[in-house]
Amino acid sequence: MTVISDADVTAAWLDDLARHCVDAVREFVGDRVREHFTGRAATTAAVTALPDFVADGKFLRPLFAYAGWRCGKPDDEAALRAASALELLHCFALAQDDVMDGSERRRGRPALHVTFARWHAERELGGSATRFGESAAILAGDLFLVWSEQLLRECGLPAEVLARGWPVYDHLRSELAVGQLDDLVNDARALPPWGDVLDVVRRKSGNYTVRRPLEFGAALAGCDERVRAALGTYGGLVGEAFQFRDDLLGVFGDPAVTGKPIGDDLRERKASTVVVLTAELAGRPQRAELAELLALDVVDAAAVERWQRLITATGARDQLEKFADDRVRHALEVLDLAGLPQQPADALTSLALRCTERVR
Amino acid sequence: MTVISDADVTAAWLDDLARHCVDAVREFVGDRVREHFTGRAATTAAVTALPDFVADGKFLRPLFAYAGWRCGKPDDEAALRAASALELLHCFALAQDDVMDGSERRRGRPALHVTFARWHAERELGGSATRFGESAAILAGDLFLVWSEQLLRECGLPAEVLARGWPVYDHLRSELAVGQLDDLVNDARALPPWGDVLDVVRRKSGNYTVRRPLEFGAALAGCDERVRAALGTYGGLVGEAFQFRDDLLGVFGDPAVTGKPIGDDLRERKASTVVVLTAELAGRPQRAELAELLALDVVDAAAVERWQRLITATGARDQLEKFADDRVRHALEVLDLAGLPQQPADALTSLALRCTERVR
Repeated sequence: MTVISDADVTAAWLDDLARHCVDAVREFVGDRVREHFTGRAATTAAVTALPDFVADGKFLRPLFAYAGWRCGKPDDEAALRAASALELLHCFALAQDDVMDGSERRRGRPALHVTFARWHAERELGGSATRFGESAAILAGDLFLVWSEQLLRECGLPAEVLARGWPVYDHLRSELAVGQLDDLVNDARALPPWGDVLDVVRRKSGNYTVRRPLEFGAALAGCDERVRAALGTYGGLVGEAFQFRDDLLGVFGDPAVTGKPIGDDLRERKASTVVVLTAELAGRPQRAELAELLALDVVDAAAVERWQRLITATGARDQLEKFADDRVRHALEVLDLAGLPQQPADALTSLALRCTERVR
Repeated sequence: MTVISDADVTAAWLDDLARHCVDAVREFVGDRVREHFTGRAATTAAVTALPDFVADGKFLRPLFAYAGWRCGKPDDEAALRAASALELLHCFALAQDDVMDGSERRRGRPALHVTFARWHAERELGGSATRFGESAAILAGDLFLVWSEQLLRECGLPAEVLARGWPVYDHLRSELAVGQLDDLVNDARALPPWGDVLDVVRRKSGNYTVRRPLEFGAALAGCDERVRAALGTYGGLVGEAFQFRDDLLGVFGDPAVTGKPIGDDLRERKASTVVVLTAELAGRPQRAELAELLALDVVDAAAVERWQRLITATGARDQLEKFADDRVRHALEVLDLAGLPQQPADALTSLALRCTERVR
């Protein structure tokens, strides 16, 4: 038994869990679509994409949630369905964020609002196809939000077990919407200080992707305070590292891997960690270049290249990679000291590395 | 004891209930805003409007839900809070529908997305104020949707009582979003047949405003099948009448009373009951006028007047008033035969008349 083989076993376990989650959400959404859209031909045709859309992700949040559950309880089909509910919550966020951010692509495919707009245009319905696409994607997001909660309530866990999870779940849901609102208020041209951006990162993606899902699973499992505190610390650190990598991927990532056009964050003028850190580290001549780039009305391919050069030259790229590495290392130390059961501990090690892989 | 005095007693009871509901949602939303926005100055300033926004309605849906409850159980503070959760659901729908429909005013005030856009413009933040306003209103809607469910779960009713209500509540929520999607697909220029429009009316406003709230309250109270069937029939009829009046108000109503500019539905090219019935009843020369009006790119005040004349001339206005009257009369007969307890029976009589008052 070598380390590599242990890692393989863990990876196989996580892949198996993810497949179960995919099946759970696809089946639940398929059932809901049949329940609510049967007999309304036009609208039904518009929503055929929904079951595939929800099955298309990496299921990071359900995996973190289920790892949290396994820190306190044995394997359980109902708990895995409960964890899957977080993927539907994520689909809600994706469907609506892509409208708000004007993102055209998601996971290498057209964003949901683009799919709806095309459907509208092909049928030559009245009014603006773009506007219809946006409204329909918002409504699909609303349905995902409702169905997430319904899947959780109907997952099969006893009410007294669910009762332990609701406060974390409720907090997570509100925090997600509030974080997105913060994000809209945060404008890159106003260049918020690093501390403010870190705060948004923590509340929005860090908490939402890693920490709260873990805490949610651990709460359902009734884990003791010591375990929950360790998971909270690990989750906070890995969540931040995840966002740093995500921001780097947005500027330097391979679109074939990220599924999104390069430079989208720059075009949307997001006060991302990579932009704000660049501003913090910029020397005098670099500040002039930064001001020029921030003032551009159109961020074309040439502008993205200038951004890439500036970010690298200030040292912000290396620094952010290092910040991410340090956080992951620290998180794994915390994990090591927490004395968790072997299987979830291995899973959390694997997930920390998986969701913070180096930018390709 | 005269009939008038009975009606006064009922009206006073309903007003008292509505005040309790107003307090419940204002307090709950105020608490949530404090919980999630404390310490984030910019975003907090943007959301100060939310507690007032949710307290500003007629609370029809909570009143119907509570009347349903009272058909099976005595007065109960927790049940009234459960009923109030439907008002937050309604706020979710209003906040997002006004974005999708491009409605600028709501209840005599600027719509929520307009308020957010103004806030953005006043602070001279980067990017489009309109776009920010729309996104922020969508997110406020999401929060209302989440908070509605949370208020219901935390209303104080025992879990086994709530368990009876969840299926109706879940159905109502999905039906609401699906109905709005139907509405967007339904284009006035395609002139759907009357039966299709009635179907949308039933699913969207009728069910959502009257029938499902009633069924929800009756389910919570554990009413027997006979009572629930009578309330379902009453609710379907009053819901349709409500929508007929609402569509008439959209064309003929006094903006000072409706709180919305006249002709908004016409501008949005909604295939409303009044437009579709006009098409069904139009004689040959009227059909030419109708085609002209439907083809207009801009629906200005003069066009609204032409619409009003055409709708009246075809007899669609009178016919729709009659349809509404007939349904209310039929609903009151059903109520009479159901043998309900006096107080909720009086309340349902009063509410049927209140929400289908003649167009002023």
